[in-house]
Amino acid sequence: MAKKKRITQRYSRSKSKLGKAPGHISYVGLRDKEPSHLQLITYNEHNFKQSEIAHKQLPVKNELETTLLNIVGISDEEAINNIGSHYKLNNLLLEDVMDTLQRPKIDEYDEHLFGVFKMLYLDGEKQIKIEHVSLILLDKQVLIFQETDEDVFGGVRERIINKYGRIRSRGADYLFFALLDAIVDNYYVVLDDIRENLESLEEEVYENPTKESAKKIQTLKKEILRIRKWVFPVKEIVNRMLATESSLIDKDTKIFLRDTSDHCTEINEDIVLYREMVTSLMEMYMTNMSNKMNEVMKVLTVIASIFIPLTFIAGIYGMNFTNMPELNSPYGYPLVWLSFIIIGLGLLIFFKKKDWL
Amino acid sequence: MAKKKRITQRYSRSKSKLGKAPGHISYVGLRDKEPSHLQLITYNEHNFKQSEIAHKQLPVKNELETTLLNIVGISDEEAINNIGSHYKLNNLLLEDVMDTLQRPKIDEYDEHLFGVFKMLYLDGEKQIKIEHVSLILLDKQVLIFQETDEDVFGGVRERIINKYGRIRSRGADYLFFALLDAIVDNYYVVLDDIRENLESLEEEVYENPTKESAKKIQTLKKEILRIRKWVFPVKEIVNRMLATESSLIDKDTKIFLRDTSDHCTEINEDIVLYREMVTSLMEMYMTNMSNKMNEVMKVLTVIASIFIPLTFIAGIYGMNFTNMPELNSPYGYPLVWLSFIIIGLGLLIFFKKKDWL
Amino acid sequence: MAKKKRITQRYSRSKSKLGKAPGHISYVGLRDKEPSHLQLITYNEHNFKQSEIAHKQLPVKNELETTLLNIVGISDEEAINNIGSHYKLNNLLLEDVMDTLQRPKIDEYDEHLFGVFKMLYLDGEKQIKIEHVSLILLDKQVLIFQETDEDVFGGVRERIINKYGRIRSRGADYLFFALLDAIVDNYYVVLDDIRENLESLEEEVYENPTKESAKKIQTLKKEILRIRKWVFPVKEIVNRMLATESSLIDKDTKIFLRDTSDHCTEINEDIVLYREMVTSLMEMYMTNMSNKMNEVMKVLTVIASIFIPLTFIAGIYGMNFTNMPELNSPYGYPLVWLSFIIIGLGLLIFFKKKDWL
Amino acid sequence: MAKKKRITQRYSRSKSKLGKAPGHISYVGLRDKEPSHLQLITYNEHNFKQSEIAHKQLPVKNELETTLLNIVGISDEEAINNIGSHYKLNNLLLEDVMDTLQRPKIDEYDEHLFGVFKMLYLDGEKQIKIEHVSLILLDKQVLIFQETDEDVFGGVRERIINKYGRIRSRGADYLFFALLDAIVDNYYVVLDDIRENLESLEEEVYENPTKESAKKIQTLKKEILRIRKWVFPVKEIVNRMLATESSLIDKDTKIFLRDTSDHCTEINEDIVLYREMVTSLMEMYMTNMSNKMNEVMKVLTVIASIFIPLTFIAGIYGMNFTNMPELNSPYGYPLVWLSFIIIGLGLLIFFKKKDWL
Amino acid sequence: MAKKKRITQRYSRSKSKLGKAPGHISYVGLRDKEPSHLQLITYNEHNFKQSEIAHKQLPVKNELETTLLNIVGISDEEAINNIGSHYKLNNLLLEDVMDTLQRPKIDEYDEHLFGVFKMLYLDGEKQIKIEHVSLILLDKQVLIFQETDEDVFGGVRERIINKYGRIRSRGADYLFFALLDAIVDNYYVVLDDIRENLESLEEEVYENPTKESAKKIQTLKKEILRIRKWVFPVKEIVNRMLATESSLIDKDTKIFLRDTSDHCTEINEDIVLYREMVTSLMEMYMTNMSNKMNEVMKVLTVIASIFIPLTFIAGIYGMNFTNMPELNSPYGYPLVWLSFIIIGLGLLIFFKKKDWL
Repeated sequence: MAKKKRITQRYSRSKSKLGKAPGHISYVGLRDKEPSHLQLITYNEHNFKQSEIAHKQLPVKNELETTLLNIVGISDEEAINNIGSHYKLNNLLLEDVMDTLQRPKIDEYDEHLFGVFKMLYLDGEKQIKIEHVSLILLDKQVLIFQETDEDVFGGVRERIINKYGRIRSRGADYLFFALLDAIVDNYYVVLDDIRENLESLEEEVYENPTKESAKKIQTLKKEILRIRKWVFPVKEIVNRMLATESSLIDKDTKIFLRDTSDHCTEINEDIVLYREMVTSLMEMYMTNMSNKMNEVMKVLTVIASIFIPLTFIAGIYGMNFTNMPELNSPYGYPLVWLSFIIIGLGLLIFFKKKDWL
Repeated sequence: MAKKKRITQRYSRSKSKLGKAPGHISYVGLRDKEPSHLQLITYNEHNFKQSEIAHKQLPVKNELETTLLNIVGISDEEAINNIGSHYKLNNLLLEDVMDTLQRPKIDEYDEHLFGVFKMLYLDGEKQIKIEHVSLILLDKQVLIFQETDEDVFGGVRERIINKYGRIRSRGADYLFFALLDAIVDNYYVVLDDIRENLESLEEEVYENPTKESAKKIQTLKKEILRIRKWVFPVKEIVNRMLATESSLIDKDTKIFLRDTSDHCTEINEDIVLYREMVTSLMEMYMTNMSNKMNEVMKVLTVIASIFIPLTFIAGIYGMNFTNMPELNSPYGYPLVWLSFIIIGLGLLIFFKKKDWL
Repeated sequence: MAKKKRITQRYSRSKSKLGKAPGHISYVGLRDKEPSHLQLITYNEHNFKQSEIAHKQLPVKNELETTLLNIVGISDEEAINNIGSHYKLNNLLLEDVMDTLQRPKIDEYDEHLFGVFKMLYLDGEKQIKIEHVSLILLDKQVLIFQETDEDVFGGVRERIINKYGRIRSRGADYLFFALLDAIVDNYYVVLDDIRENLESLEEEVYENPTKESAKKIQTLKKEILRIRKWVFPVKEIVNRMLATESSLIDKDTKIFLRDTSDHCTEINEDIVLYREMVTSLMEMYMTNMSNKMNEVMKVLTVIASIFIPLTFIAGIYGMNFTNMPELNSPYGYPLVWLSFIIIGLGLLIFFKKKDWL
Repeated sequence: MAKKKRITQRYSRSKSKLGKAPGHISYVGLRDKEPSHLQLITYNEHNFKQSEIAHKQLPVKNELETTLLNIVGISDEEAINNIGSHYKLNNLLLEDVMDTLQRPKIDEYDEHLFGVFKMLYLDGEKQIKIEHVSLILLDKQVLIFQETDEDVFGGVRERIINKYGRIRSRGADYLFFALLDAIVDNYYVVLDDIRENLESLEEEVYENPTKESAKKIQTLKKEILRIRKWVFPVKEIVNRMLATESSLIDKDTKIFLRDTSDHCTEINEDIVLYREMVTSLMEMYMTNMSNKMNEVMKVLTVIASIFIPLTFIAGIYGMNFTNMPELNSPYGYPLVWLSFIIIGLGLLIFFKKKDWL
Repeated sequence: MAKKKRITQRYSRSKSKLGKAPGHISYVGLRDKEPSHLQLITYNEHNFKQSEIAHKQLPVKNELETTLLNIVGISDEEAINNIGSHYKLNNLLLEDVMDTLQRPKIDEYDEHLFGVFKMLYLDGEKQIKIEHVSLILLDKQVLIFQETDEDVFGGVRERIINKYGRIRSRGADYLFFALLDAIVDNYYVVLDDIRENLESLEEEVYENPTKESAKKIQTLKKEILRIRKWVFPVKEIVNRMLATESSLIDKDTKIFLRDTSDHCTEINEDIVLYREMVTSLMEMYMTNMSNKMNEVMKVLTVIASIFIPLTFIAGIYGMNFTNMPELNSPYGYPLVWLSFIIIGLGLLIFFKKKDWL
């Protein structure tokens, strides 16, 4: 393919799972299996502590502090299992944590709330990266399972560390919201990148379309279709969180979630809009190609239509008949030139009138 | 791009907000930061007063009069904060007031009703202008936050000043409705402009399509898509106002809102209709281009098909074989001319019959 | 535009209403302002009376008779106001009566039911006419506001006069239904006309498409889109009348309305169907044009491909080299002719085999 | 039109009904008015009787037997009226019985259930026939109103006569279901015919598309659109029968109706599928036509591009300048031939490399 | 057709069923009638037994064990009838078991739950196979009716035999779920195959589209449409199982079903996505074909436009007029060559500037 495929997370789930029991815990993804490492943050309005821990020393719930446990690396089955049994997490849930192809969703359990999302972000080379992330909200605690070190939660951590905004004074549900909000905010970044691509492609198509342009348009369209797949379900997830009666989410936090829901609506509308615009762009490309073809044909037609008749006339007087009186007339040659000029000009005027020149 | 882009309000929200806490109040827009200025109108059926005030001298509620506070300029964070705390407005709300990219919406609070809209209007050069406007309905008071001096509320102010219609005798909820109605009425103006553009483009495409026409059609389509984005949500907003049980909106005012809801339905239908018409127009353009191509090809075909065979005949008798009996026959030359005429006419008749001439 | 636009009711509402207060009563339409004239019909099973009245002598309700008041001309503000206050009609309602661009709708009031519709009918020259009509159902009385003398209610009046059917023995609600039914029946007439146009265009496109055909198809499509705009809402209106709990409409009358609802469903389906058919027709047109182009290219290709190589051969022996042995051979000239025939026939067979002839 | 239109039932309802009162009973169809004839079948588990009766000797209800009255011919207003008053049928119902353009629907009355359907079946020449049929279910009795002798109920009658299956042991509601089921089963026949047409057209388009193919595709598309119109509403009808609380339909019969509902779902899905496939087919046709055009252009381009330059070279040495040294050189003529061969082969190789040969 | 049709299960249901009574049990399919053979598995947490049985020795319910009866071959009417009466299955149900064209569905009965599905799997040659399968859940027992030996339940049987996962410790409802889950998991395999085809076709279209590519795209599209037909209803089925109040399905099993429902959502979304991508691919193909045509035309235009005028000039000096002074001038011939070169280069530069070279 001409353009490097930007979104690469995609392979056959069927091959790795077929014939396995549901709830069978195994890593489904493209990365090598590596041990998970865990980062623990505990904070309340006054205190803040950050440390690396091993998956065998998991913290117990602390009534006075909010705990954020960040598990990086989801291919370490032992660690995941350990964490699962410590926090009493269902096997089906753990399966989803490790299944990087799992569609975004939210599941409510009695003791916790489990959300699966896709982090979309741009890496250094402006390639769109997709990463599987699971957020679990327990009483006073939030767990993040993510594939790699890179994430979109830097801003949230900074706000915790620097005591900026209201995050330190609110509970785990607000933290859960803040993480979700960070994920959604990054969708804007990716969509802005899509829009910029769309606009530069638009300029290319309008100004100087080449054969490559069509491929670029189609690639962009496929990117939009794939982003749509991961982003569209989030709105429904947020709305289900708004409607939940679970005691885990506070009424005050729902006011903020309402805002996130608005953002999701806007994002979904933008995706639909960009989809329509990319279709228009393809249409415009086809039109331009067709116009170019028109121009090519006009040039051919004008030149051929003028010179083919003239060549015929020259051909007449190139014949070798013995009795062609014109040939010997002293006016013959100039008159033929006159006819060349008259016919040529006549056709030129004709084409001019037809606006083909 | 060929045509000056008419709708220009559009830039990256992601760059200005990413990593900030939700409810963080900062101006999101393209204008320079300038101090807000406030215009205060108080009126009842008998009295009317208008004055400029500073944001440190905000008025207290007056049970006998309706107050309209018009804040022009939404980049002055200090002023906005001041007003916010005076009227006990939520930080998330103030964020939306200053976020010029916020999608139209309505939020109900216990003490007030908060609506975000886009004013669409035509400026002097018939360019479509989009301005972010927030309307807040409190008991006996209405606040307008707008970006610039220019607005679509001139008619409402005149009716208050001149005591025209029922506006002076009704409360703040009617004022809120009147402002909303003015916004919606201006959508008609913009749509009428779109329709006029559509019709003149239609004429261009039918009568004399050029390469530019396609670009104009696509630009118009994008304008319609963008207007749709800002205008479509308004219908839902009005319907939610009709369904609200908030005591802020009187039952009598809802009769008027029902009318506005009808208008929104009509506007949305028109946008859909124009969208379909612009698609038809593009189709027609393509057809016309294709017909033009057909004509070009016909001319080439007719001229080439007539003269190429004739040139071949002339070529035959231009050969230099020694024994070509025709060359020396006295009838040779006239007979060749006869064949030219017969073949030429024959082909002409053939093309005439095929309707290519 | 090639074809005379058939549907002409369409102009800028925005220009006439912008900045006016809602409920401001003024005529919105293209006709000159003229005084309204009023026709009064009163009837019961036994009696019937018909008279012209002035708008200052409006009738009082008669418990024993059904009253039909027909107001022709909706630009006479004084008359409309007079009638409005006599029947205690809301200003917003009167505004809609005079606003010829008002979308079809039904509003329920405590004392009356107010419906706005579009009469569609064919005039003498088979042009589609659109007229704004408002029907008001009060207890024992029906008011019709219409733009001109022409209407679609002739059949209803005849049935009243001639005591045909059940109309004389039933109340005002049945009369309201009968008028609505007459409006809907005329949609069939207009749709039949559309269908006939569609079929004749279809024949034109299949048999002998010209450049004009595309314009005609597009014009028809626009007509269908516009009719859809006025006709589609009627189904919802009828369904709301069926669901109403207003005492103005009798249960028996609803059986008839159910029939009208069925008709509306059918009409809406037909409009959708015709829309699809017109799209197919455009597709067919494009295909035909493309086939024609194919044929043109084939003719060019066949003629040019045969004669260009032959001309080259003739050109060879028209060269003036001194030592061209073929020229002096007695077989040269016949052999060249042989090659002409063989090459020509060979190419003919080749094209025949390709099915291009 | 190229292909004989297969579905012919279609003409202007508007012309025959406009201005008539609703419930006015008159035949709306294309056939000549003919007297109806009536066939009466009575049966129970043990007895069976079949007879022709006159419409003046209508049977009375028989508590012990199920009665099937089959009225053939719906243009005999006297007979219809007679039957209507005997069975206490509403005038609006009778109107629908005689209106061959009536959309399929079901109406529940207190004493009977009234269904309007379209029988679709293939006649001897594989033409699709559409016939208007009304089924009325009364207590212990079923009435069929049909246009002609031909129907799709042969199987049902045979099962009654031959006591096959459970039909003889069940009541009138099962008979009603069996008739409806027979109608729906015949939709499969028609759809299978459509599918066969689609497949043979598909083969034609893939193997040897002609200009006629496009017309055939469009005709098939129109057939599908029209069948959709008559068949789609049946699903809703069956679902309303399933949901009815009328005592006329037994709970046991509803189990069978559920099956019919499944069939309707499948039929509707198939119609949608065929619609999509016919669109694909048209697309494929266009692609094929475009590919053919490509081939034509390639042949022209190859031949013209090779011989036009060669002809030019031959033309050079056909010039009559006195001092053209090449002409007198003994190598001149062979060298020109060499250049012919080199240029010709070069271009051939060029075109070969471009894959145009 | 170019490509071997991969999905072959499809023939006329209408021919085999028309005129038969509903609930008439007969095999509807393409295979020869063969005797069914039955495989019986009984297990609980501790025991496991597997045996082949005859349809006359059907097992009785065993309160302590879960029974899985696998009936292979559904054309043996006697066996099916026997099984039906042993398990008290409805005739309509048995009809659906044998009707290989039956749409997927679920029917709840008092004593059992009846599901019809399509197994989709790839055979050895990567052809998509469709097989009709019915699952019946009774208390403690599950029946599978399938067409052939081949199925997708190998993994489930292995888990039972090897006591892997929780299947042995759970009841019949979990077994039912596990079978359904295996069916759904195989949809992923088929979809992955579709996706691979799509991607290889995409590469073909982008790199080297041929006439065959269009057919392959259309064939793939038809495959997707047909898979959609069989797979789409499954989601609704699972959701109805989730909502059922039947005591046959345990609350714990529903947690697993929720997972299956998620998978169905994802599968349906993927089908929609692939459908859109195949449409894009066709569009891309058309664009590529159109670009190729453009290139062909450019070559023709460049060559013809350069040499046709030059040939004309050569033609002039090939004329035989007696007084053509240029012919005798010693500069004549070189000057003509100069004009050849200038004109030729001029046109080359012109075409270069137009980017046609």
